[in-house]
Amino acid sequence: MNIIKNAGVCAPLGFSSAATAADIKGNGSDKLDYGVLVSMVPCEVAAVFTKNNVKAAPLIFAKERLTSENKIFGILVNSGNANACTGKEGLKNCRILAEEGEKVLKLDSNSLLISSTGVIGEQLPVNKMKKHLRELPELLTGYDEEFAKCILTTDTRTKRLAVLVETENGAYVIGGVAKGSGMIAPDMATMLSFITTDAMISEENLKNCLNSAVDESFNSITVDGDMSTNDSVFIFANGLSGININTEKHLREFQESLNYLCRELAKEIVKDGEGATKFVTIRVKNAFSKDEAKRCGMKIANSPLVKTMFFGEDPNWGRLMACTGASLVTMHEDKVDIYFNNLKYVENGILIDKQLEKEAAEIMSEESFTITVDLNTGNAEAEVYTSDLSYDYVKINADYRT
Amino acid sequence: MNIIKNAGVCAPLGFSSAATAADIKGNGSDKLDYGVLVSMVPCEVAAVFTKNNVKAAPLIFAKERLTSENKIFGILVNSGNANACTGKEGLKNCRILAEEGEKVLKLDSNSLLISSTGVIGEQLPVNKMKKHLRELPELLTGYDEEFAKCILTTDTRTKRLAVLVETENGAYVIGGVAKGSGMIAPDMATMLSFITTDAMISEENLKNCLNSAVDESFNSITVDGDMSTNDSVFIFANGLSGININTEKHLREFQESLNYLCRELAKEIVKDGEGATKFVTIRVKNAFSKDEAKRCGMKIANSPLVKTMFFGEDPNWGRLMACTGASLVTMHEDKVDIYFNNLKYVENGILIDKQLEKEAAEIMSEESFTITVDLNTGNAEAEVYTSDLSYDYVKINADYRT
Repeated sequence: MNIIKNAGVCAPLGFSSAATAADIKGNGSDKLDYGVLVSMVPCEVAAVFTKNNVKAAPLIFAKERLTSENKIFGILVNSGNANACTGKEGLKNCRILAEEGEKVLKLDSNSLLISSTGVIGEQLPVNKMKKHLRELPELLTGYDEEFAKCILTTDTRTKRLAVLVETENGAYVIGGVAKGSGMIAPDMATMLSFITTDAMISEENLKNCLNSAVDESFNSITVDGDMSTNDSVFIFANGLSGININTEKHLREFQESLNYLCRELAKEIVKDGEGATKFVTIRVKNAFSKDEAKRCGMKIANSPLVKTMFFGEDPNWGRLMACTGASLVTMHEDKVDIYFNNLKYVENGILIDKQLEKEAAEIMSEESFTITVDLNTGNAEAEVYTSDLSYDYVKINADYRT
Repeated sequence: MNIIKNAGVCAPLGFSSAATAADIKGNGSDKLDYGVLVSMVPCEVAAVFTKNNVKAAPLIFAKERLTSENKIFGILVNSGNANACTGKEGLKNCRILAEEGEKVLKLDSNSLLISSTGVIGEQLPVNKMKKHLRELPELLTGYDEEFAKCILTTDTRTKRLAVLVETENGAYVIGGVAKGSGMIAPDMATMLSFITTDAMISEENLKNCLNSAVDESFNSITVDGDMSTNDSVFIFANGLSGININTEKHLREFQESLNYLCRELAKEIVKDGEGATKFVTIRVKNAFSKDEAKRCGMKIANSPLVKTMFFGEDPNWGRLMACTGASLVTMHEDKVDIYFNNLKYVENGILIDKQLEKEAAEIMSEESFTITVDLNTGNAEAEVYTSDLSYDYVKINADYRT
């Protein structure tokens, strides 16, 4: 096996995408905001959705289509409007647009899913969108940069990656695009990701692999497991490579590759977080369990006090101790060690030497660094990814809609 | 019964306090940062402490003293240094300072408690503090404004209140001071409150009344029940009024008065939150249970996306819906109504009329307003209090220690 992790020029066979500017926000912008991702043949599809009790219409729509016996070919995606909190009309609009998409793309009935991101609580401009849908067929291309663009909201750049997996029977590709958003309130951030592969894999295996990959990627940058109204990760497998992922070895390779792809896309989301100027990895070591390691990491990664401290480049380790304690994991204060990159800064719950502050501050002045909290109580470990909290976060979110 | 709720000129009998500037932070400041609150006779004492697994030395010290059979006369309090994450030396310093305090104030051994707030992870300047302790006896006064000052950290003003309760046997007073801090990360904010009363009440009743009062005041402005390393609320009852709180009626009056005092002090903490420009009441109505009502309110009150929206005066109700859903309480999206003050803005989960946005924005432009979320699923209710999230919050916390 050989996994080529940054196979940017490769794309899974038989997928194409297109994007157009439909001015969905209605502010006259010519930003790409409406697109389609489609396969030449029907796909096995798996998806992970937000656990929020308020789910946007496209999620309800997609769930329904996925549980019925439909042949799924692809998905229509728009930014600028989340189609959330839109009641029955919102759901009806999903049906209207999917139907129109299937017609203009000459696909079977009930073969398209829908995904949306943007402002909550406004109805989609359906007539305008129907009109722009008709532009998509002739824009279809195998290169998904435009599609990656059309799903962005406050992101400043596209997030794309492809992984090529060579097997003894030939190669297959897993490709993915993602969009993120504010990382300070990750439990409300809308993140979307659309992954495609030409590997041949059963729906059940695809589901299991996706759940596992999301857990240590997209769910390691968000709290409470994806809590916006629209968070969704989809994977489409069309089998066109002919490589059948049906042995333990193949499954392991597929999982490893998918994990890598999801983790890198998740990191890109953090790096491009609203107002983010730093990328910080929080590693919790020697925890009682994997769950506790992650919970502790998340408590630290999501603390506005910690995040403003990252922004201020102030190695105020007490805030890290306080978050560790507040996570309510199994711990003893006098056993905790804390590292800034490789610098051991806190030992047995106490600052080793005030003189180390300068060195720690220097590490924090870098764009990217790692905080390791060693609980010394077990042998489980987890990594989560976070950004700092800057003035710009406030600016972006104080007047998001204007 | 007659409760005079703003009895600012009154103070419980037999309590006095003093404060001095001990330069505990060591930056040469002449800010009041060290004080004592003391009763002429021993008190019944109850306290509520942080649930954080990392507890500051003074909390461990006070807990020990309260569980043993000690006659408690009062408490020494300092700001500028939390004496948290300071190991055995931190605990030893508590003993040294209490002993010195008892000596200079001519009190019984083991009769003083300790409380601290400020930077985590640094040892107290004990020698300097011992020296300044000696100044306190001659500064003792029945007027606690100086004491209220010495406990402040990033607070911009003191928080004090007294309630006078007239009974058929005469009157007693409950007085209190508090300090708060950043409200965006309330699960790490250090809040302290010291309450005194000359009512005569058993330790058990005092404990129950305090727990109940804290629940709907200080714990309704913080998440996860007080999660900094130092959060503490103390109440001292010295009985000198001679009014015995031993009937159901008296207990009810006492509880009502204590609830009022705590709630008003809690509100003052929010209003003076770091960088806060607005005071917002989140009322959740017709929830399945009181717990769910509070959980939903807290989820909204603590969302940085909601708090930046308050700052931006943008009635982006979708964020309120998303938080409501993310709180995972019993709810149906299409049953939720949302009010801005008395303006019904959302009905059955949908915006009533886009034209109402202007009116909602006007309400948000006020310094203080109420958001009501009516879940229409049960009949429980809760209120929580929060502030907005402004640029100044980031500024204050990015370089808190410098």
